[in-house]
Amino acid sequence: MTKRFDGALRLADFEALDATDSLAPQREKFVLPKDVIYLDGNSLGPMPSSVPERINQVLFDEWAQGLVRSWNSADWVGAPLRLGQKIAPLIGARDSEVAICDSTSINLFKTLTAAIALRPDRQTVVTEKDNFPSDLYIAQSAGARAQVDVEAIDNLSELDRHLSTGAVAAVVFSHVNYRTGARYDLGDITARVHDAGALMIWDLAHSAGVMPLHLSESGVDFAVGCGYKFLNGGPGAPSFVYVSEKWLGKSLQPLTGWFGHRDPFSFDPTYQPSETIQQWLCGTPAILSYAPLEESLDQLGAIDLQAIREKSIGLTEAFMALVEQRCPHLGLTLITPRDESERGSQVSYTHPDAYALIQALIDRGVIGDFRAPDVMRFGFSPLVVRYIDVWNAVEHLLQVYSDDAWRDPRYLNRSRVT
Amino acid sequence: MTKRFDGALRLADFEALDATDSLAPQREKFVLPKDVIYLDGNSLGPMPSSVPERINQVLFDEWAQGLVRSWNSADWVGAPLRLGQKIAPLIGARDSEVAICDSTSINLFKTLTAAIALRPDRQTVVTEKDNFPSDLYIAQSAGARAQVDVEAIDNLSELDRHLSTGAVAAVVFSHVNYRTGARYDLGDITARVHDAGALMIWDLAHSAGVMPLHLSESGVDFAVGCGYKFLNGGPGAPSFVYVSEKWLGKSLQPLTGWFGHRDPFSFDPTYQPSETIQQWLCGTPAILSYAPLEESLDQLGAIDLQAIREKSIGLTEAFMALVEQRCPHLGLTLITPRDESERGSQVSYTHPDAYALIQALIDRGVIGDFRAPDVMRFGFSPLVVRYIDVWNAVEHLLQVYSDDAWRDPRYLNRSRVT
Repeated sequence: MTKRFDGALRLADFEALDATDSLAPQREKFVLPKDVIYLDGNSLGPMPSSVPERINQVLFDEWAQGLVRSWNSADWVGAPLRLGQKIAPLIGARDSEVAICDSTSINLFKTLTAAIALRPDRQTVVTEKDNFPSDLYIAQSAGARAQVDVEAIDNLSELDRHLSTGAVAAVVFSHVNYRTGARYDLGDITARVHDAGALMIWDLAHSAGVMPLHLSESGVDFAVGCGYKFLNGGPGAPSFVYVSEKWLGKSLQPLTGWFGHRDPFSFDPTYQPSETIQQWLCGTPAILSYAPLEESLDQLGAIDLQAIREKSIGLTEAFMALVEQRCPHLGLTLITPRDESERGSQVSYTHPDAYALIQALIDRGVIGDFRAPDVMRFGFSPLVVRYIDVWNAVEHLLQVYSDDAWRDPRYLNRSRVT
Repeated sequence: MTKRFDGALRLADFEALDATDSLAPQREKFVLPKDVIYLDGNSLGPMPSSVPERINQVLFDEWAQGLVRSWNSADWVGAPLRLGQKIAPLIGARDSEVAICDSTSINLFKTLTAAIALRPDRQTVVTEKDNFPSDLYIAQSAGARAQVDVEAIDNLSELDRHLSTGAVAAVVFSHVNYRTGARYDLGDITARVHDAGALMIWDLAHSAGVMPLHLSESGVDFAVGCGYKFLNGGPGAPSFVYVSEKWLGKSLQPLTGWFGHRDPFSFDPTYQPSETIQQWLCGTPAILSYAPLEESLDQLGAIDLQAIREKSIGLTEAFMALVEQRCPHLGLTLITPRDESERGSQVSYTHPDAYALIQALIDRGVIGDFRAPDVMRFGFSPLVVRYIDVWNAVEHLLQVYSDDAWRDPRYLNRSRVT
C-alpha cells in the first residue's frame, strides 16, 4: 500500500486501496449503522458484533442464574487482571503490569500521586497546557494534595528547562493530543525524563489499540488509557492502568479500596497493599462494562497492530491530501502534523464555523466531532473506516459548504458535543 | 401482618403469610433460578426482568446505531444525575443532592476528603473497627493525606468520648453493619455528631432500597452507597453519592475529573468546579452499568418502602424464630440484634464451621454467604424472598447438619466467597 497521494486523486484510486486492504474483512465484525461514515471512533469506538451475545450471557447465565456465585464461577473477580493481560500486548507491557479499573481520570490520580511519593525530595510536576482538560484538572488536584507545584508548559523546550532544574518529580503527557492528533516520541521523551531523574506518566487514550506501543521496552513508569476509544469497549468502558514492574510492590496508590488489598476476602481491618498490579484496583469492578471490552480485546488481540498503524497512516494521509486538493476554498486550517511519525489516527482542522460545519456533516451521516472553541476533528479507526469513506466524507464536506447547509440557524446553538 | 412468631411454628403459618403478602407480586418482576432460595440479595441483588430489553436497546439502538451521538440523543451524559434523582426519594434526599458515579470506596474518598477540608482546625476522623474493611482502608488513606488522625472505635461510648474533645472533623459509619446486620439510629447519631460540631458521613450500602431513609430531614452531611445490593443494579453497578444541599457549592471533592467541571464540554484548561451535585462526578460514566440500575430504580420507585421494611422485619424475625425453635443443637450463635429497630435486612450467626455449612447449603441451592472468619450471613430481599423460602431454608440447614453433609472434605478449602 502506498502512503503517497500525489497527482489528481480519483475515486478509483480509493476503491483500489480498499480492494487490497488486508484489514477490510474486519469491518464485518462490527455492527454499524447504514448511511453513516463514522469518523469518531477516537471518541467512541463502534460495537463489535459479538458483544450482544456475550452481554446476554452475563445477564442471563451469570447474573440471573449464577447470582452471587458468579464472582467465582464466572470469574468476575478476575476480570480486572484478566482483561489487563489482554491489553498488555497491545501496549507493549508485561502481563503483570496492566489492570482494568475505574476511569482514566481516576487512574491518573492514582499513578500521579504514587509517582510524586516516589520522588519525595522533588517539588514539581510537569504537564502541558494543551493536555486533555481532565488530565490537567487531576494533575492540579493531585499536585496540590501532595504539596508540589504543577507546571503546565507550552512546548518541549520548556520541558527541558524544567528537567534541568532537578526538581521535577514526574511528567504527565498525553501521547496523542486529543485536539490536534499530534503525537509525541514516547521513547525519546521518556528517556529525557529519566535522564533527569524524574518519572514518566503517559496518557494513551488516543493511541492504545491503533498503533504498536512499547511501554516496558521504553521503561515507562506509569500509563493510563481509555477503554472506549480505539479499544472499542463501549460507552464509558473502564480504563486501563499500567505500572512498570520496577514499581510494583514499591509504590502506593491512594485510593485504597478493598480490591487492592493483598487478600480482599480476608476482610482484614488493616489495609495491606497487594504487591502486584492488583493494588491499583479500588472498589468492586463494574462487570457489565467489562464484558464488551473483553470481546473487543479478544478481537484486537488477533490483529497485527502494525497493519492497523499502516492503514491509519494511509487513511489520514488520504484525507489530508484530498482536503488539500479539493477544499482549498473552505478556509480550513490543518492543525495535525503532516509528518506521519508525528501524528496519531485523527486529522483536525480549525475553522471559524467549525461547530456548524460539523453539525451539518453529522446531519448528512458523516460523524466527526467538534472540540471547543473551533476544532473539527476526524478520527480514523482502521478496522471500520474504508478509503471510499474518506473519499465520500470529503464529497459531503464540499457539498455542505457549497449548499450553504451549514448556515442553517439551528447549527448556531452550540449544544454539548462529546 | 404480625411480626410475632410465638408458639410452635408450622409451614402453614408461613404459607398464610405469603398468601396475604402485598409484595408477593414483585417476585414475578425478577428472573430467578429454579431450585434456589436466594438469601444473598444483600451482596448481589437479583436481575429485574426488564433489564435485558433495556440493555439490548443500549447496545443496538444507542451504541451501535447512535454511536457517539447518543451522549446527547440518548442522554447518556445525563445518566449520573438522572439516576441520582431516582435514588433521592429512596434515601430521603432532595433531587439536587444525589448523583451516581464510580464505586462506593471512591465516593467515600471524595466525601471524607471534602468533609475534612470543611473542618480545617480539627485533627481527627472517627470510624469504627467493625466497619466494612474498604471503608476503613479509604478512611486511613484519606486521613493520612489530609494529615488528620483516624480513630477506629469499638463502641458508641468511645464516639462520645472523641466528640467531647472538640477535635473531630468527621465521623464515618456504616448504617447497617455488613457482618452482623446491626443498624445504627441514623438520626440520633447524626444529631450527636452535629452537636459536637463535626460532620457525618453514612455508608448506606446495606440499607438503601430496603427501608425508608431520611437523609435531608436528619441533616446528614454526606452519604455513599452501593448500587448492586438491595438496589439490584447488577454486578458492580455504580455507587451513589449524597451531598447535603448545605455543602453544595461550598465543598470540594479531590477527584477533579472533567465531568465535575461546571461546563465539561468547554474544554477549559482550568478546573472550575460545578456548584451542583455534578461536581462529585469524575470521569466518563460507564453507561452499560447504569442501564440495569435505572431499570431497578424505576421498579423500586413504584413500591412503598415502608411495606418493604415491614416485610423485611417479618422475614428476619421469622428466620430467627425458626432457628431458635428448631436448631438449638447446631451451635449457632446469633450476632444480629433481636430488636427490629436495631437491625437491617440480614441475619448472621457465628459457627466454628461457618464456611463448610454455608458451602453445603449453597450446594443444596440455599445461597447465603460466609464472611471471614466464622460468620454465616443470610440476607432477606423482600421483593423476592417468600416466607416459605424462610421455612425451607431452615429445613435445608437442619438436613445439612443432620446428614453431616457439611463435613465433606471439599468444604474444608476456604476459597474466595464474595
